Amino acid sequence: MPDVFVAGVGMTRVGRRSEPLPDLMADAAHAALAEAGLEVPDAIVVATMNPEEFIGDGNFASNVATQMGFADVPTLRVETATSSGAAAFYAGFAQVAAGLRHTVLVVGGEKMTHLTTPRVSELIGRSIDPYERAYGATMPALAGLVTRALMTRGAANAREIAQVAVKNHANAARNPLAHFQDAVTVEQVLESRMVADPLRLLHCCPISDGAAAVVVSAEPARVRVAGIGHGTDTLAMRHRRELTSFGATRMAAREAYGMARFGPERIDVAEVHDAFTPFELISLEDLGLVPPGKAGRATLDGETALDGRLPINPSGGLKARGHPLAATGLAQIVECVWQLTGRAHGRQVAGARRALAHSIGGLATNNWVTLLEARG
Amino acid sequence: MPDVFVAGVGMTRVGRRSEPLPDLMADAAHAALAEAGLEVPDAIVVATMNPEEFIGDGNFASNVATQMGFADVPTLRVETATSSGAAAFYAGFAQVAAGLRHTVLVVGGEKMTHLTTPRVSELIGRSIDPYERAYGATMPALAGLVTRALMTRGAANAREIAQVAVKNHANAARNPLAHFQDAVTVEQVLESRMVADPLRLLHCCPISDGAAAVVVSAEPARVRVAGIGHGTDTLAMRHRRELTSFGATRMAAREAYGMARFGPERIDVAEVHDAFTPFELISLEDLGLVPPGKAGRATLDGETALDGRLPINPSGGLKARGHPLAATGLAQIVECVWQLTGRAHGRQVAGARRALAHSIGGLATNNWVTLLEARG
Repeated sequence: MPDVFVAGVGMTRVGRRSEPLPDLMADAAHAALAEAGLEVPDAIVVATMNPEEFIGDGNFASNVATQMGFADVPTLRVETATSSGAAAFYAGFAQVAAGLRHTVLVVGGEKMTHLTTPRVSELIGRSIDPYERAYGATMPALAGLVTRALMTRGAANAREIAQVAVKNHANAARNPLAHFQDAVTVEQVLESRMVADPLRLLHCCPISDGAAAVVVSAEPARVRVAGIGHGTDTLAMRHRRELTSFGATRMAAREAYGMARFGPERIDVAEVHDAFTPFELISLEDLGLVPPGKAGRATLDGETALDGRLPINPSGGLKARGHPLAATGLAQIVECVWQLTGRAHGRQVAGARRALAHSIGGLATNNWVTLLEARG
Repeated sequence: MPDVFVAGVGMTRVGRRSEPLPDLMADAAHAALAEAGLEVPDAIVVATMNPEEFIGDGNFASNVATQMGFADVPTLRVETATSSGAAAFYAGFAQVAAGLRHTVLVVGGEKMTHLTTPRVSELIGRSIDPYERAYGATMPALAGLVTRALMTRGAANAREIAQVAVKNHANAARNPLAHFQDAVTVEQVLESRMVADPLRLLHCCPISDGAAAVVVSAEPARVRVAGIGHGTDTLAMRHRRELTSFGATRMAAREAYGMARFGPERIDVAEVHDAFTPFELISLEDLGLVPPGKAGRATLDGETALDGRLPINPSGGLKARGHPLAATGLAQIVECVWQLTGRAHGRQVAGARRALAHSIGGLATNNWVTLLEARG
């Protein structure tokens, strides 16, 4: 398989945006194309989770291609719920790796803040097993269940889980594109409004609008795609062997490390799917980035802080950069590329050579690990 | 790029089905896997157009994978409106061609008949440019516009356009999996209820449920994927250079023939996207299967009938086999494979060696051409 590179990246500010989704996606796309020095890509892969219900438009690949001025560029859409951006990156990667396309623009985005929170929760809840959904399960409710199991098992305590939010807000305050720009304390997290016991408001990512884009290319560039892995798991939580580790992440990590021919010990910086802060702790262990049972302690000890041994979510993560669903998997890759090319101003991880992006679809039913490596 | 093969195909009966969509898709998938002699595929690509609104479920890749017993097989979803099945085939093809996977199960399906016709029309209408939709455009209305332009230009007359339905119903009557099993006459077509002037009910495909599946493999098998092409066009009809030819089809055909290194003159049988019967005439010319301006005449003369020079839509086409949206692009490939392997009982095109499948997404905004070749 020939090498595949990232030739350009771009993203919008994440947060409450008034622009239409195709405009946000076009902004991100044109930034990535400009960096790649490319006027027109050979093909486009679009990621959106549910544009039909979020904004009332379907046929969204053609919609976005037209709106960004590329009506005659072959464009398809990829969807794997909240990990759609990472899945689209894989689809673009496969086209280039196969020699079908020389350059592929991968662009993801979502627009949700114009809807009420209950409506967003209902729509995101379509990701949940229909039977469990019928009993009232929502994403925060299931995440609360996972968190309670984690705490009961003694694998993480309340301060450790809160510290993830503290760290990621601190990072986001250094990222001008992040949804949140304010620091929070452990006390603020632990005193914030209850959402789904034991998860409180500041344990949860916000509802965000935004878009991110990556140009994948066969042409050598400063960042190479070292590995990609994809893992899935049962739609229903009740069919899982365990609640406090995500099999889909472990599967994706194994595959990505196998392709890259290096393991977690070589990773210098990672963007990890922290839609709920305990998920960052679970994922650090599933990804092999910290030993089993040590993620909470490592976080409290500052190992995963910006100046720690292994900075996690320098962008602020889903928690504080924000989580515009299908943009997120690509925004993670954008941050990794900025880190690997020394452009993460104000939050640069010194000398980062290898980065990992980890994206979760649904309640860990469809997860991705992407490994990127600096060249030269 | 290494050769890619079709190792197995399967599909359900198309029509009004009471089974849940994941069950229909599992039936088609397991038939394809059985034919491929495969217990578990390396990966799955799922095609559905809009499961969130048609059946209320999202995260559909994981949903279907779980329901078919493959919760731990990497699965993603691809969508390009009504051509989603063809797009998913391409995504699976790319994974195998890149060497990322040895076998990929591609499965598409849709369930719509439980909804009212106005609701289905509204949901399919999300494929239309939002501005044109705001003025009341529906898919049949826009297709009526195209048909009127075709007739005004003198490129096809009413009998020719009706004959497509007559031919495709006659073919479907030989296909036990087709939605319609009855022959119709030109008079019946021309006297059927008006839908969108000049299109009448029997010019239009039905609302159908169903599923189809294809196993794509790096392992040599009886049918090889000779070429795939993808073309797009402006979302808005008003931005098109012409109404009576689809640029997205011409682009897709050019690319597919280029990859296959043979042209339309080598095609023995084709499945063509006839959601509205005039589209078959337009497409025959766009695909280069008949000379410009000759499709109507060729159809009246029986050239495209089952015993003609170039049989088109032996399955019955979208018109009469039915059009379960994201299943359709795959159902076309299933029919082509059956034709190429001598298994299209009762409607076999003698000695077919090369087949073409042509799928239209939206109002010709996202079209695909897939070329298949018999081996040995």
